[in-house]
Amino acid sequence: MENRTELENLGEFGLIDKLTEGFELNQPSSIKGVGDDAAVIDCGDHYQVVSTDMLVEGVHFDLSYVPIQHLGYKAVVVNLSDIYAMNAEATQITVSIAVSNRFSLEALEELYAGINRACKLYNVDLVGGDTTSSLSGLVISITAIGVVGKDQIAYRSGGKENDLLVVSGNLGAAFMGLQVLEREKQIFLENPEIQPMLEGVDYILERQLKPEARKDIIHYLNDLGVLPTSMIDISDGLVSEVMHLCKASGVGCAIYDEKLPIDHETHRVARDFELDPSTCALNGGEDYELLFSIKQADFEKVKGNEFMTIIGHFTDKGSGMNVIDRSGVSIEMKAQGWNHFNG
Amino acid sequence: MENRTELENLGEFGLIDKLTEGFELNQPSSIKGVGDDAAVIDCGDHYQVVSTDMLVEGVHFDLSYVPIQHLGYKAVVVNLSDIYAMNAEATQITVSIAVSNRFSLEALEELYAGINRACKLYNVDLVGGDTTSSLSGLVISITAIGVVGKDQIAYRSGGKENDLLVVSGNLGAAFMGLQVLEREKQIFLENPEIQPMLEGVDYILERQLKPEARKDIIHYLNDLGVLPTSMIDISDGLVSEVMHLCKASGVGCAIYDEKLPIDHETHRVARDFELDPSTCALNGGEDYELLFSIKQADFEKVKGNEFMTIIGHFTDKGSGMNVIDRSGVSIEMKAQGWNHFNG
Repeated sequence: MENRTELENLGEFGLIDKLTEGFELNQPSSIKGVGDDAAVIDCGDHYQVVSTDMLVEGVHFDLSYVPIQHLGYKAVVVNLSDIYAMNAEATQITVSIAVSNRFSLEALEELYAGINRACKLYNVDLVGGDTTSSLSGLVISITAIGVVGKDQIAYRSGGKENDLLVVSGNLGAAFMGLQVLEREKQIFLENPEIQPMLEGVDYILERQLKPEARKDIIHYLNDLGVLPTSMIDISDGLVSEVMHLCKASGVGCAIYDEKLPIDHETHRVARDFELDPSTCALNGGEDYELLFSIKQADFEKVKGNEFMTIIGHFTDKGSGMNVIDRSGVSIEMKAQGWNHFNG
Repeated sequence: MENRTELENLGEFGLIDKLTEGFELNQPSSIKGVGDDAAVIDCGDHYQVVSTDMLVEGVHFDLSYVPIQHLGYKAVVVNLSDIYAMNAEATQITVSIAVSNRFSLEALEELYAGINRACKLYNVDLVGGDTTSSLSGLVISITAIGVVGKDQIAYRSGGKENDLLVVSGNLGAAFMGLQVLEREKQIFLENPEIQPMLEGVDYILERQLKPEARKDIIHYLNDLGVLPTSMIDISDGLVSEVMHLCKASGVGCAIYDEKLPIDHETHRVARDFELDPSTCALNGGEDYELLFSIKQADFEKVKGNEFMTIIGHFTDKGSGMNVIDRSGVSIEMKAQGWNHFNG
């Protein structure tokens, strides 16, 4: 009888690992393959980084409340975020779409208007792509390309014990934005006459619908003379990403709950939903902030900075990966990041 | 009232042009964007070429008769073909898949076994990708990367009047393979007891199910000291591709029906299906052979070569794009390439 292992028993990371375990890197220019935010290719006097993402309607986005122009914008930004997470400058993208005839030319023009807007703002060129039909819905696949000096690249794996853990911006806002949108969708489905209640939630909605990638942080760190020892972008939630850094770097960590940067709007709406704001910051996805480690020697350069917050530090591997709560109790981390196969 | 233009009124090439017309290239490293087989990026001492394709179940492939391992192999090969069509050496790929829970881990391992096989044979590294779930079926998006010397790159646009038009291998075989598979699928659907009749059609089935990209031709031309003045790979059918070269190069062409290389198996099966073998060679898709132009001065180097055939030449633009039939009559070309939005 044929073996059949269901995909839901694996999880996204387990699946990638399983499928690519028999592959080798044989080209001298292949510096880094699967396993970081982007692949790394040697181009002679610099490295090129390449990252790719696929977004599926009904899985990653819901056009019943996401304006299609915002979707185009976000699809680009999400990919650029992976490039910046290598401490690289994004330069080009390719965009492929599969689309059912439910979509009109005008809808696709809106999608590409959003893509173009992101390209202009981030100074990235659209250089290629593919358009084809799908039997159901919209699929967007984007590949982003960037460049970085060979001595400037930041991998997930460079973190050392006692390095400080830093996060840009604030956390949990995109997650709370999603909760509001889903609530309003439910209300609309139950009674289409009711107007949506979207007052006082502008910031969290924008973080969900039109996130930005932290190109500015890459430039800023460069200006400060700080080279991250490890870096990742926060797409699946802080805890999930910290665990990636720890595993790749072979270290443990301590993250302090009280240090987590949370916007007041995120905090207030979390309370309205009877959610713990810290839990939203730790596990909410789609922040697209940068999480990175720096040497203790760089502490003075970053201390008190309005664009980034020190939230903890790496420890020895044996101490494990922990969140220290407000009463000083260590809680071991469990990934609660998105798993698109667990529905 | 909102405007609504149906996609089926556009065609694939019309759609790409429309969607990308507002985009500019601003990065100094972006040498060539949308409009050739691959984008071209300046990497300092060489060019990098980047090509991307999306394959959708039910549109580009039918798993009821395509073994999933062959699908993985073919998906890679199709992309590499675009890299070779720039006269470049393929070096890396990324593979993203969206997959419904109809698929088991074992099925995906088969898919990746095919991908790995192609990677090994063409000496290409898998360096990245994404896996996610889909609501229906399988979508595969592959980006292929290659390198080429700056004075060795072949664009679609370099053809000149009187250049000779050359095609590698033979034409129409993959198309006839598809006809056989579709016939057998119909027979099976009508009566599952009947065994498929696949004798004497091995070659055309292999051309359809497991095509190869013409890496060998790139090396061979290099050895011969022949630099193509323009080049494209044949995915949508010879006529469609010749028209692309003519439009990009600003020339006309004359293709001689009697010169078209057609394998005897393709010829025989076309006759069985009461199809004109020349029509299959001119308009059948998925050959993945290379079509290129060379200077008349290179005629002696290519003449009588068993791996490539001179099928015609470029003319002045005013003479139009013509197929010369066996009685010497010129017939103006009309593209009959695949249009995935016209079903």
